[in-house]
Amino acid sequence: MKITRIRDAVAKIPSPMRNAVISFDKMTISLVAVETDVIREGKPVIGYGFCSNGRYAQSGIIRERLAPRILEADPDDLSDEAAGTLDPHAIWAAMMSNEKPGGHGDRAFAAGGIDMAVWDATAKILGQPLWKLLSDRYNDGKHDDRVLVYSGGGYYYPGKEKQGLQDEMRQCRALGYKLMKMKIGGAPLAEDMKRIEWALEVAGDGQNLAVDANGRFDLDTALTYARAMEKYNLCWFEEPVDPLDYLAHAVLCDATSMPIATGENLFSVQDFRNLVRHGGMRTHIDWLQPDPSLCYGLTESLRILDMADRAGWSRRRAVPHGGHQLGLNMAAGLGLGGTESYPGVFKPYGGFADDIPVVDGYTKPHNTPGIGMELKREMFSEMRRLMEFT
Amino acid sequence: MKITRIRDAVAKIPSPMRNAVISFDKMTISLVAVETDVIREGKPVIGYGFCSNGRYAQSGIIRERLAPRILEADPDDLSDEAAGTLDPHAIWAAMMSNEKPGGHGDRAFAAGGIDMAVWDATAKILGQPLWKLLSDRYNDGKHDDRVLVYSGGGYYYPGKEKQGLQDEMRQCRALGYKLMKMKIGGAPLAEDMKRIEWALEVAGDGQNLAVDANGRFDLDTALTYARAMEKYNLCWFEEPVDPLDYLAHAVLCDATSMPIATGENLFSVQDFRNLVRHGGMRTHIDWLQPDPSLCYGLTESLRILDMADRAGWSRRRAVPHGGHQLGLNMAAGLGLGGTESYPGVFKPYGGFADDIPVVDGYTKPHNTPGIGMELKREMFSEMRRLMEFT
Repeated sequence: MKITRIRDAVAKIPSPMRNAVISFDKMTISLVAVETDVIREGKPVIGYGFCSNGRYAQSGIIRERLAPRILEADPDDLSDEAAGTLDPHAIWAAMMSNEKPGGHGDRAFAAGGIDMAVWDATAKILGQPLWKLLSDRYNDGKHDDRVLVYSGGGYYYPGKEKQGLQDEMRQCRALGYKLMKMKIGGAPLAEDMKRIEWALEVAGDGQNLAVDANGRFDLDTALTYARAMEKYNLCWFEEPVDPLDYLAHAVLCDATSMPIATGENLFSVQDFRNLVRHGGMRTHIDWLQPDPSLCYGLTESLRILDMADRAGWSRRRAVPHGGHQLGLNMAAGLGLGGTESYPGVFKPYGGFADDIPVVDGYTKPHNTPGIGMELKREMFSEMRRLMEFT
Repeated sequence: MKITRIRDAVAKIPSPMRNAVISFDKMTISLVAVETDVIREGKPVIGYGFCSNGRYAQSGIIRERLAPRILEADPDDLSDEAAGTLDPHAIWAAMMSNEKPGGHGDRAFAAGGIDMAVWDATAKILGQPLWKLLSDRYNDGKHDDRVLVYSGGGYYYPGKEKQGLQDEMRQCRALGYKLMKMKIGGAPLAEDMKRIEWALEVAGDGQNLAVDANGRFDLDTALTYARAMEKYNLCWFEEPVDPLDYLAHAVLCDATSMPIATGENLFSVQDFRNLVRHGGMRTHIDWLQPDPSLCYGLTESLRILDMADRAGWSRRRAVPHGGHQLGLNMAAGLGLGGTESYPGVFKPYGGFADDIPVVDGYTKPHNTPGIGMELKREMFSEMRRLMEFT
């Protein structure tokens, strides 16, 4: 059993939106395909993956460091003979050989794209959906038949603030979402509070609405916002401050009854361990949001969940960032709290299987082998085209 | 005043050595040249830089993200009219635009290479050595006429352990070094203690010797090593544990009288702030070792020094990693504790000006405009050749 080739390509996912910190008009992601010599249904098994949105393509690191190390390793060391498929943990170790500790940034995104493709191939070789494999290996055979999904969005609409925001949220409701997230921090506090009230007119209940500051605030501003928002009983306040300012998180968690959510900009078990140790996050109300396709992949995400478990965190308080099918497979197979989704942006990479709708805030896992990318037809066809499969 | 072009190239710096964590046989760095339309001595000013060793070349991030943003910015926003030269802080902000918070890894190395070239050009336009510019702007005009340098090395020599190590250390003494560093953690404790005793036979005094575990140990092992080494009165114990395990640093600093040194694998002011806040490091005996060419450059290093200053750290306790002339300029101009050097490895990029020797453990700053790279003739000629200057 052998990995015969690793392809990658850059996909453009420009979007006219901006959050409180960056604009997305030049955003790119790396696509990855891991080709094997294992034949299933008459064809070699190919695993597909991509780096998640927000952090740009990583072709340099994939081509110059990570992919060559996998292809140079002894194939016998990269498969799990007893399981009859690839060994994603061994492949992860091979691609990370001769990498120094610390520095968990772009390398983590490159590794995340490859690792996603490796897990897709690993599940396909077994003829199982990835969530089923995760359930069997890491969740005592349990899984969730339905997974909470929430919509990331709630952008600013200069010139038509109320109409634009409410229209977007009504569209999300029409698509089946119940819990919806909106941006804050791109306007003065009073204006953001008006926007929250407009959003609540559509969301109905505070528990159907979360807010996201994208790490923009200093501690003073975050405290002021938290106090102003407490009365709305919102589901969470996401990335109130710089993701690495653990002390600010601790002060905030001590000072407010609002649930705090963060993690999409932490990319290693070391960084999450520091958040858990030093960030004062509360295991009963706060949320951890790793993006498995950015933080060195599902392989490192399993370590993050283990570390959090040992620190008293229920898996139900983990809700992956990224709005992709890997997050959905993890949520269903590992019993997480849910997963993000981006209706309307980062197309065609955001969202889940074409024919499995969101109903009353939940979606269902798929039933084909692997991650299920073939069930997103436009995305899958673009991935094949950009990576020059014929 | 305008940056007209940014070149980069990959240089191979293979080395047969390995530390406790990685081998260096495929190590590369990125070279950078920032070309301007400013004429000095009849020729356009060009600034040169490179990413430091240990973290690989970063051509993808330089070419796809950072360099284009600088070239697309309005040149008027990138120069400092009052000072009559480029504005490295504005250029840094331009190259980091549309980058999300967190994730301080490979991006930091790419930025470090560009930022080094920008500061080289900035000082050349003023006709000043970089250390002089730093002294004037950030050190009330004070500078050091001589800078402590220590040798990084002390490798393992399989089959000729004692002879190999002592020969290497004698060569360092012959080159003028007094304080020398050696690797530990690549052998069992008893063997490492023997190696320390062999090294002390050459170094003479424990204060002339530091040890480096390259972040390999878990806390238990680091504690055991620290207790075993206390009797040698060594200068410091470097990277005892994972660079991001602040709690382990705090336990270690509480438990041992040995000075602890770390920082080469922290790459942002946020990460150093966490070390200072949560790592229990002692301002009177421990050491901070940022690598300015890896941690987003001199520009971010100034922020790190400011943060440390506000937390009670003297600049004398900062000793840059990397063994390059940027560290030497910073040490001389900002009044740091010294800088690292690698006699014999990472050639030709390690080390200082060809004609300025190390004497009794100290070297002197240079007197030409910029960082002084032109004074390392073999390095400078290789940089010009690899970046295809004619």
